[in-house]
Amino acid sequence: MSGPDEREAWIRLAHAVEPGDAATGAWLSRFGPIEALARLDHGDAQGQNGRRSPLEGLRARLRDAPDDAASAASRVGARIITRVDAEWPTQLADLGDRQPCALWVAGAGSLRLLALRSIALVGARAATPYGEGVARAWAAQLASEGWTIVSGCAFGIDAAAHRGALEADGVTVAVLASGVDVAYPRAHEALLARILDSGLIVSEVPPGESARRQRFLARNRVIAALTRATVVVEAAARSGTSATARAAGDLGREVLAVPGPVTSAASAGCHRMIHDGDARIALDWTGVLDAVQPARCPSAPTARTARDDLGERELRVLDALPRRGGRDVEQVMAACGLGHVDVLSALGLLQAGGWAERGDAGWRATPAGCAA
Amino acid sequence: MSGPDEREAWIRLAHAVEPGDAATGAWLSRFGPIEALARLDHGDAQGQNGRRSPLEGLRARLRDAPDDAASAASRVGARIITRVDAEWPTQLADLGDRQPCALWVAGAGSLRLLALRSIALVGARAATPYGEGVARAWAAQLASEGWTIVSGCAFGIDAAAHRGALEADGVTVAVLASGVDVAYPRAHEALLARILDSGLIVSEVPPGESARRQRFLARNRVIAALTRATVVVEAAARSGTSATARAAGDLGREVLAVPGPVTSAASAGCHRMIHDGDARIALDWTGVLDAVQPARCPSAPTARTARDDLGERELRVLDALPRRGGRDVEQVMAACGLGHVDVLSALGLLQAGGWAERGDAGWRATPAGCAA
Repeated sequence: MSGPDEREAWIRLAHAVEPGDAATGAWLSRFGPIEALARLDHGDAQGQNGRRSPLEGLRARLRDAPDDAASAASRVGARIITRVDAEWPTQLADLGDRQPCALWVAGAGSLRLLALRSIALVGARAATPYGEGVARAWAAQLASEGWTIVSGCAFGIDAAAHRGALEADGVTVAVLASGVDVAYPRAHEALLARILDSGLIVSEVPPGESARRQRFLARNRVIAALTRATVVVEAAARSGTSATARAAGDLGREVLAVPGPVTSAASAGCHRMIHDGDARIALDWTGVLDAVQPARCPSAPTARTARDDLGERELRVLDALPRRGGRDVEQVMAACGLGHVDVLSALGLLQAGGWAERGDAGWRATPAGCAA
Repeated sequence: MSGPDEREAWIRLAHAVEPGDAATGAWLSRFGPIEALARLDHGDAQGQNGRRSPLEGLRARLRDAPDDAASAASRVGARIITRVDAEWPTQLADLGDRQPCALWVAGAGSLRLLALRSIALVGARAATPYGEGVARAWAAQLASEGWTIVSGCAFGIDAAAHRGALEADGVTVAVLASGVDVAYPRAHEALLARILDSGLIVSEVPPGESARRQRFLARNRVIAALTRATVVVEAAARSGTSATARAAGDLGREVLAVPGPVTSAASAGCHRMIHDGDARIALDWTGVLDAVQPARCPSAPTARTARDDLGERELRVLDALPRRGGRDVEQVMAACGLGHVDVLSALGLLQAGGWAERGDAGWRATPAGCAA
């Protein structure tokens, strides 16, 4: 059963289920969101042997949920997407019982399309100038290649990654452990505003919610699942970042770690991951692309999505691409009359689908794209 | 056939065979050194079809060899060892047809015993202060654990490794591409003199010979074959050091590479080796030991050599070791009346054989050693 009822059920449940709670997730999988919600609403989930049911907590939080979540989201400039929405990134299903019930998204682009060609750059809050420099430079390069840079907007590596993408006029997505309207850390309020201009702010918890310790780990699993690869730029030994990297590996995502001086504690976690086989060594940003596109062969691409999958926006951008030579993003914008975010998103989808490619002279249509 | 004739034949051949020449090595393996030398001496190796035999070059160099090589070696403070000598490191046989005919050795210790517990620390001439610092610190730590540090005495990483071992009062071996009496580079004349005080200078080419380009690569294979592990501290991309590391891997030796900043060209070769699986990542000096002693278990050692294998020197040192607590090297020297190099060499052999171990309080006999 799918449709408006299921969507509303997921949204209500998203106000009650703590992010990453696999036990509750398994219970939801068993009954489905509508039946589960009915059991919660009608109290049909008594604890056995007189013990308090773990569902009592869910029930209490459900009672505090707003009656009109869509309006509440809209008031802070966000929308809510669920597993039944077209914008839902289907790769989140890899999280199994830990898949979020819903996501709050602020910003103009489509999370699903942006996440199709996305790379996570994450790392230590207590980063060094070396690590921040690498994060910033690689994020800028990857973003200018049309990749979305996903990170957590924390101090240190995260912020450097977002800034690098912004400096390259690229698209970046901040996945927060707090609500999308809660600037955390506070000092990054201006950075979050800049991210919102061309990218997205995403959260699994409702507006107004604060970033609690457990939610950082839960948030990191969303970053890992959204993206094609997680690049750890700096991480101390036994840090949360290392746990994130292992989670990404468990999801079948590429995990890369950037080496640094063996004398730098901020690189110890990266070195440990490489040593233990939990991450590949990342030598430069092109190596990151090689990891996510093992058989890069720009001269002989094949269309990996059907032409019918292309939306009107993608077709307009495809029409604006030359067969030979290339156009930069501004030229494509002028030719098709679409805005920056729309063009970047469409180019990402077209490239992922094998319809467009980026050569030395800029973006152009592939032979498959020309035939379309 | 073995004995004085074979020994003399190897020594004469060592004056003619260019280091690392596998084709000539295969020819020597086919006939044995005595028969091969007879064929060279009596001209029984004519080129076919009127072409000049490749053996003519060997013949010409043999004519230039000194009549009394032992005296010539002795005049520069060296001895000559061959495959039939007790001091020959048997692991050099892993080189197959590229095994040296002989080695010139200067210094008091036994090359065979010192090489039993040896680690090569090698790397770029154009090293950074970071790389030199790591080489020096790790060499000092490994040397103070009783490991012999083997390197090539070049500028940069090599020199730093030798200096680190010397600063820890450890033993270090310089394997030169020139004759043992030819200081190369010239600026390392004083360093070579210090190495000689407590360690060894080794070469595959006769005294007086200069270091030619091809001989550096050939020398590096000897370093790789002598040691249990080769640690590359810094190496540029596509450098000779990378080739050395591959050679060590082909010999079944452990190869480790030290990471550094991805922004440092001096670490690019190390990163490439780790990336390509040609080297393990080396995180610290204890990790190097873990690589060569996978099942380190100091509390339950077993004797891996028979007691009959222990020489008089080793037995004297073993008798000087306490059953509990420990003695430092100076105390052992005082107790057994042997010199620094003898005690270090003997401790190395005793430790390799499981008779002695080094605890927090210093050297002591293992249960196996106490029972001996």
